[in-house]
Amino acid sequence: MIAGDLERLIQLLARLPGLGPRSARRAVLHLMKKREALMLPLADAMARAADSIAICSNCGNLDTSDPCGICRDPKRDPKLLCVVEEVADLWALERSGAFKGGYHVLGGTLSAIDGRGPDQLNLARLIERVRRGQDATPSGSDDAGTAETARIEEVVLALSATVDGQTTAHYIAERMADSGVRLSRLAHGVPVGGELDYLDDGTLNAAMKARRPA
Amino acid sequence: MIAGDLERLIQLLARLPGLGPRSARRAVLHLMKKREALMLPLADAMARAADSIAICSNCGNLDTSDPCGICRDPKRDPKLLCVVEEVADLWALERSGAFKGGYHVLGGTLSAIDGRGPDQLNLARLIERVRRGQDATPSGSDDAGTAETARIEEVVLALSATVDGQTTAHYIAERMADSGVRLSRLAHGVPVGGELDYLDDGTLNAAMKARRPA
Repeated sequence: MIAGDLERLIQLLARLPGLGPRSARRAVLHLMKKREALMLPLADAMARAADSIAICSNCGNLDTSDPCGICRDPKRDPKLLCVVEEVADLWALERSGAFKGGYHVLGGTLSAIDGRGPDQLNLARLIERVRRGQDATPSGSDDAGTAETARIEEVVLALSATVDGQTTAHYIAERMADSGVRLSRLAHGVPVGGELDYLDDGTLNAAMKARRPA
Repeated sequence: MIAGDLERLIQLLARLPGLGPRSARRAVLHLMKKREALMLPLADAMARAADSIAICSNCGNLDTSDPCGICRDPKRDPKLLCVVEEVADLWALERSGAFKGGYHVLGGTLSAIDGRGPDQLNLARLIERVRRGQDATPSGSDDAGTAETARIEEVVLALSATVDGQTTAHYIAERMADSGVRLSRLAHGVPVGGELDYLDDGTLNAAMKARRPA
């Protein structure tokens, strides 16, 4: 007895990650109560983003322009490249302000269980970006412009500390073994604000091994 | 560094119940990956529902027509009226197929804490519907058409078994004391498929008190 238009909206919303049929119904009722303030703006924002946002052909980021704002930003360090699994990870690093180089979004990890091999990831383009920098004569000039004309010196593998994430990091490290770039990974340790009591043994072990003078 | 169009979409999605900033970001990335299959249809379904769905002026249900399909359905029993808090409750009862009369959606409960009084609920209209049925001469004919021309004989108060829900049920019962309609409530007891071990004491007590011959 739910009207067809509502039923369809519920079914589509239920396909979002984190929402099931029940929470989709709740969301739709909430939307109906805030038609002007939320429902119409949301429909509009969704249609607009679907139209305006594209995948950066250089790094895999999402932006209104291609190449994306980060790839075009002359203030970012072209010698540093950070490899992440998803755009969400790029956003997290950008929020932290911890990194000022370029990014490369893989679009996932290698996964034996899910049957994702190197061809399903944005890997060929990564190798190409790193190689292209190496083949070019080092310009030495800092005003070279985009990252793509400069030599990449360090690739930070900012992948998840999961089996699949680490497998992917190993694979990339092997593929880049002869490229001459420096490879690095994020440090393991106690999260800032984290209580020891709640940390898993692996994290505590890593933090203890990497302990530093106080 | 998130593009403005994406940022706005994330902010709007995060205002849905059950979604926060983090899950809204995940949802948006999922949408961007399924632009044709999900994002555009969802934007369209949302705009369409916002346009086509209205609140039934008779019962408070949501439908493409006013009065809604249930209020206009001649096959539903006009002598039975079920009072629910929200449209979601109406949907739940319709899914169960347990009720074949008309509905009345209050739009919430009385709440001392949230400061919701009788005027904030769809209560006046409920009293009016019940009274109007009583004042009219009982027609006695079964082909009377919509529920509103017939005498309401029983009002089922299908409200939550919470303090606010029960307060609201009491309030409605008092307001209808002189109307001559029969008032009823949903039975308490062990949920079908429920394990005794996981039930709270209140439910077990209610189920024991209302025990029936096997």
